[in-house]
Amino acid sequence: MVPQVQIIGITGIPEVTEGDDLAALILSAAQAQGTTLEAGDVLVVTQKVVSKAEGAVVDLKDVTPSPLALEFAREHNKDPRHVEVVLRESRRIVRMERGVLIAESKHGFICANAGVDASNIPGEERVSLLPRDPDGSARRLREVIMARLGFPVAVIISDSFGRPWRLGSTDVAIGIAGISPLKDYRGVTDPYGYLLRTSTAAVADEIASAAELVTGKVDLVPVSIARGFPYLPDEEATAKGLLREASLDMFR
Amino acid sequence: MVPQVQIIGITGIPEVTEGDDLAALILSAAQAQGTTLEAGDVLVVTQKVVSKAEGAVVDLKDVTPSPLALEFAREHNKDPRHVEVVLRESRRIVRMERGVLIAESKHGFICANAGVDASNIPGEERVSLLPRDPDGSARRLREVIMARLGFPVAVIISDSFGRPWRLGSTDVAIGIAGISPLKDYRGVTDPYGYLLRTSTAAVADEIASAAELVTGKVDLVPVSIARGFPYLPDEEATAKGLLREASLDMFR
Repeated sequence: MVPQVQIIGITGIPEVTEGDDLAALILSAAQAQGTTLEAGDVLVVTQKVVSKAEGAVVDLKDVTPSPLALEFAREHNKDPRHVEVVLRESRRIVRMERGVLIAESKHGFICANAGVDASNIPGEERVSLLPRDPDGSARRLREVIMARLGFPVAVIISDSFGRPWRLGSTDVAIGIAGISPLKDYRGVTDPYGYLLRTSTAAVADEIASAAELVTGKVDLVPVSIARGFPYLPDEEATAKGLLREASLDMFR
Repeated sequence: MVPQVQIIGITGIPEVTEGDDLAALILSAAQAQGTTLEAGDVLVVTQKVVSKAEGAVVDLKDVTPSPLALEFAREHNKDPRHVEVVLRESRRIVRMERGVLIAESKHGFICANAGVDASNIPGEERVSLLPRDPDGSARRLREVIMARLGFPVAVIISDSFGRPWRLGSTDVAIGIAGISPLKDYRGVTDPYGYLLRTSTAAVADEIASAAELVTGKVDLVPVSIARGFPYLPDEEATAKGLLREASLDMFR
């Protein structure tokens, strides 16, 4: 059998606003384009529509910047209220220079601007935050979708993060439900009899990256389906569990 | 139209040895399983078969470890000859503790063991190195394949790299030919009229990660095809060009 994975974009999802039933919007859009979900599909939902549905959007008109935000914004020609929102979303500033703010978000994700983003939001002067609890968002979305479908699927909430050493961003999983984020080869013997000792693939992040090839950044395709990957079901798994403990992080 | 990307594994590639015509092996295996390559396909070839075809394999019996390798191996219960090969492949040691060796390879890639790997190689006591010039390997492979097919395809040589902050490895592009590794959204306006200023997606790495979902680590599927992604053709692009200049790397 030819091993194969498909990423199928879901088009036609309307503008999402606070309180919307995102599961219903996704399922009707899939149906409208003739895509039928299947057991074992992984639904990859980009962060922004989740944040919009949850109302994790801030109007900059309501934000009073701190002196720190004012100073950094002045130096680097930025909107001080945007900088202020980034500071409020951060639990640690990793780097703050040349106009770049790399922060550890309240969830523990290390990314530019603590995930605060002004793109793809209707109306001026509004920025989106990461969902408060992306694993919880994924879990709730999955429960509603599975209740309507009647068979198991997994959910990944994705966002585009930069990384050290290499240019550009890749999409990673910031919230997951129903899928083990790691494929652990430790203890597995390769076809030549060699025992793998350290190999663990971050498959949830790889699925998020694969999905980005279809969803893009400006194409109004905020959701896709990854089909054909034999993931390990895991009801307890979280994307938070993907974070490396700082003291054990040899890559830092 | 439903946007869609497919990853199709190529099975049945025989054991690759030094001097093999990898392009021919890939094309016959694809044909044998009924997969016809198409213009615009991206062929993703995992590093190990490229290294094997190029003879980038070292027999540990021929390696005399240095005092540094002997000491580190003794402390952490490792094979000192394996450690020695890692040191020889490195141009800088990033971390060397708890038995973990994170190094900058001669190419500039930062990864565990400078890419030296003992898995998936026949025979005992042999380790594979990264190809000397993975962009050159990709370019040569692409030339042969395009000459036989008569239409344009792109080639990515992939390997599994760990990363800071997050557990597990994701596959990245260590060599490319014919494809721009970055999709640059700077200057693009989103559907809401917002001008994107910083967004650049590392699509070659995302394709490599997508391919890993099909190739895995022990399944004898070392090559796959990514189909349907509208990549930007680029005859000059290299994976080396994906490396962030250290002085501009705010994520370090």
